[in-house]
Amino acid sequence: MELLSTNVVFAGEHRRYRHHSPTLGCDMEFAVYLPPGAVGKEPRKVPAMYWLSGLTCTDQNFMQKAGALKRAGQLGLAIVCPDTSPRGAGLPGEDDDYDLGTGAGFYLNATREPWAKHYRMYDYVVSELPELLERELPLADQRSVCGHSMGGHGALICALKNPGRYQAVSAFAPIANPSESPWGKKAFSAYLGDDPKAWEEWDASLLIPTARERLPLLVDQGTADEFLDSQLNPDTLAEVCETFHHHLHLRMHRGYDHSYFFISSFIDDHLDHHAQALGLR
Amino acid sequence: MELLSTNVVFAGEHRRYRHHSPTLGCDMEFAVYLPPGAVGKEPRKVPAMYWLSGLTCTDQNFMQKAGALKRAGQLGLAIVCPDTSPRGAGLPGEDDDYDLGTGAGFYLNATREPWAKHYRMYDYVVSELPELLERELPLADQRSVCGHSMGGHGALICALKNPGRYQAVSAFAPIANPSESPWGKKAFSAYLGDDPKAWEEWDASLLIPTARERLPLLVDQGTADEFLDSQLNPDTLAEVCETFHHHLHLRMHRGYDHSYFFISSFIDDHLDHHAQALGLR
Repeated sequence: MELLSTNVVFAGEHRRYRHHSPTLGCDMEFAVYLPPGAVGKEPRKVPAMYWLSGLTCTDQNFMQKAGALKRAGQLGLAIVCPDTSPRGAGLPGEDDDYDLGTGAGFYLNATREPWAKHYRMYDYVVSELPELLERELPLADQRSVCGHSMGGHGALICALKNPGRYQAVSAFAPIANPSESPWGKKAFSAYLGDDPKAWEEWDASLLIPTARERLPLLVDQGTADEFLDSQLNPDTLAEVCETFHHHLHLRMHRGYDHSYFFISSFIDDHLDHHAQALGLR
Repeated sequence: MELLSTNVVFAGEHRRYRHHSPTLGCDMEFAVYLPPGAVGKEPRKVPAMYWLSGLTCTDQNFMQKAGALKRAGQLGLAIVCPDTSPRGAGLPGEDDDYDLGTGAGFYLNATREPWAKHYRMYDYVVSELPELLERELPLADQRSVCGHSMGGHGALICALKNPGRYQAVSAFAPIANPSESPWGKKAFSAYLGDDPKAWEEWDASLLIPTARERLPLLVDQGTADEFLDSQLNPDTLAEVCETFHHHLHLRMHRGYDHSYFFISSFIDDHLDHHAQALGLR
């Protein structure tokens, strides 16, 4: 891990690193916020919330715009922000669209060419990155996962597919049923092929019926979100959770949109939720 | 005023507007945060803190990165973020350097060609913009001013030159003695000419000896600020304040740099300071 930069913030540290990812077959950058207790001369291990960002984002959007670091510092919670896709893999068409390829890894393992060799963001965020960081940084093996939009989808599937791996999960405006959204259909077709059967293990609403992981799902959604009707489908998630008795706390927030202004308004609630599950409060 | 966009945030609203500025002779954009009490069906007038940004910034840097809107909403304080220079004036060399021309108006009234006709950011932020906003938006005629780097310089001179106009002033890492800093010398030479006598009325450290405005100055400065030694000169400001018995609360923060990570770590203290002076707490 190569340290790219460090900023003192809220008595802790924001750091950016670069490393070579064997899973993705390219160099990756990520950011981490370490709260006060995890920096200095006698750092102690702290739990970490993984934040999965939405389409077009890098590791920096959340760190700079969410206003999350004050509460994280108070709680003693680290935050890890991975990038949203492999970078510079050099695949044909990789940079043509904002919603496929670079910046749009969808937190799955691609099985179709030309994507299959590099686009394995699921393995990267679930396995490689936590193993690396729990070895190299003062992070305990207690984790939670949260995300926005494409990253909200990512957070939900990472938790649902890995019982016991995360102590909490939540999402802002997740793509809750990607198999039925234009973004999801486009990405899943490219990465997984045209058979919707292959999509089921990457769709939160389709995972709920058989999920062994029973963590409650905290989901915030703005009613003025410009993608609510066309892409996000929280109603489908609500229905399937109702049917299969999966605890969903879906909060609809009047007038809020899809932006970081929305995320920043409610991120402290999510941090508190994660901190409680991680034994910090 | 043309409304460009609006986002609900912390139960208030972030809005961006465009308007034609007679002072600057061009169209300008700015952002405003209105706290919950100032929006909705029966908006009431609230005081406003003007935030003056640093080199290269627009109206958006502070709104998106400072993490200020939560506390501002709780306090009932509006925030106004002007741009940092005229835009699209079409002057020769205007876009050549990051520290002169576009994005670098230095909150003064230029007297030299080709700048004199457009580069009048002082009149714009002190007079035109407040008059416009107190007429068109639910803003009371109670104001305060705060800023960062070039904008910290701007905040200090706007307050010092206008007794009674602002109820509070503070700054993050201000260019505290621009006449002696490379950034200041370059800008002042271009905008005001080579005679340093003409610079004195635009330099906080040179205004203190004769200032009738006696507001206490709250100034935060990081010790790891990459521009501390070369550009900012807080020691000079501290010395002249000491000599002339001007109340300065200069806080040196160990390890913090020049970034918005620094600003976000202490912005709530500034908001509280401004709110108290504006009668909000």
